[in-house]
Amino acid sequence: MAVPVYVVLLHFPVVNRHNELVTTSVTNLDIHDIARTAKTYGAQGYFVVTPIVDQRDLVNKILGHWRTEKSKRFHPHRFEALELVKVVENFEEVKKKIREDHGMDPEVIMTDARPIKDAESYVSLRQKLESPEWKKPVAIVFGTGWGISEVFYPQIHRVLSPLYGPSRDGYNHLSVRAAVSGIMDRLFGH
Amino acid sequence: MAVPVYVVLLHFPVVNRHNELVTTSVTNLDIHDIARTAKTYGAQGYFVVTPIVDQRDLVNKILGHWRTEKSKRFHPHRFEALELVKVVENFEEVKKKIREDHGMDPEVIMTDARPIKDAESYVSLRQKLESPEWKKPVAIVFGTGWGISEVFYPQIHRVLSPLYGPSRDGYNHLSVRAAVSGIMDRLFGH
Repeated sequence: MAVPVYVVLLHFPVVNRHNELVTTSVTNLDIHDIARTAKTYGAQGYFVVTPIVDQRDLVNKILGHWRTEKSKRFHPHRFEALELVKVVENFEEVKKKIREDHGMDPEVIMTDARPIKDAESYVSLRQKLESPEWKKPVAIVFGTGWGISEVFYPQIHRVLSPLYGPSRDGYNHLSVRAAVSGIMDRLFGH
Repeated sequence: MAVPVYVVLLHFPVVNRHNELVTTSVTNLDIHDIARTAKTYGAQGYFVVTPIVDQRDLVNKILGHWRTEKSKRFHPHRFEALELVKVVENFEEVKKKIREDHGMDPEVIMTDARPIKDAESYVSLRQKLESPEWKKPVAIVFGTGWGISEVFYPQIHRVLSPLYGPSRDGYNHLSVRAAVSGIMDRLFGH
C-alpha cells in the first residue's frame, strides 16, 4: 500500500462500563492477534499504548521472548508480525515516532462501536487513501475497555462508522481483536 | 438476514504445521470472541466441535458460568452472544441439529488461509445468499491449528477465497478469531 498505516491500541484514555476514565490492562492475545492482523493488512507498525511502566515492561518481556533467532526459525509468521509492535507511554510518543519516520504528523482516525456524529463510511475513506493525492501517514486508533474516552477526541481528525451486521440497531459488541480485523479488512482487504 | 447462518469451529479434523491430522485444544477466547462476532453478524448458532469429552465438559462448564441470571444482568451482551454456543462431538451432529431446526442439511462453506482451487469470491457468495431464491441454511466452517484437514473435504459444498491485505502473495496469517470476523463482515456486514 502506498500510504504508511499504523494501528494504535489505547489502554488509556478509555472508559469503563460506567463511562468513567480508566486504564485497562494489556492482554497477551491483543498483542498477538492484532499484530498478525496489522501485518496481514500491510500496516508499518502497531503501537500498544499504556501509561503503566510495569505493563510496558511486561509487553517488552513478551516481545523479547519472541524476538529471538530460535523463534524466527520456528515461528517465522509470528516473528514477522511481532516485529511491528512498539509499546509506548502515550499518544504523543506515537505521533513523535511517525513524525521521525515520515516527516509529518499522522492523520488520526478513530473507530468506535458507538455511533458518533459525522462518522465517515469505509468506502469513502478507502477511496481517499487509495488516491494518489493522499500523502499523510495514517494512525487508526482503537480503544480497549468500553471505548475511547472523550478526552482523546481533540487528537482525532476522522471518525469511522461502527461495524454492523444485518441490522443497524442490532447487536454490535465485537471484541477489539475482531473489530480491528473487520475494519482493516474494509479499508485494506482484497 | 433471511438465510439461517451457523458458524462452526473445528478442533478436529485439522492439521498441525507438518500437515498431520490432529485434534487441537479449545480456548476460552475462541468461545467468547467468535460468539460475539457470530451474534454481531446475525448467525443463529455457533458450533464448537471437539471429539474430546473433557474438552466438551470444559466448554459447558464455562458456558454454565455465564448462563446465569446474575450474568444476564451484569453482562447482557456477553450473555446474549454465549447463548449461541453449542458444543458438539462432530460435524454429523452439527448437520443433525440444523436439520432438526430447518428440515434440510446446510450448505457447507469452508474457508482457508491457503489458496484452494475453484474458491468462490465473497461478492459472489454474498449476492447468492441475499437473493430470494436461496433457501438452504448455511454452515460456515473454520479450522483451528494449521487449517482444516483434507479428510473433511467431502463434507464441503463451497470454498471461499482466503482473506488478503494489499498483496495477494503477502503475509496472511490471521488468528482464527480475526479471520472469522473479517469473513463474516464480508458476507453479512453493513
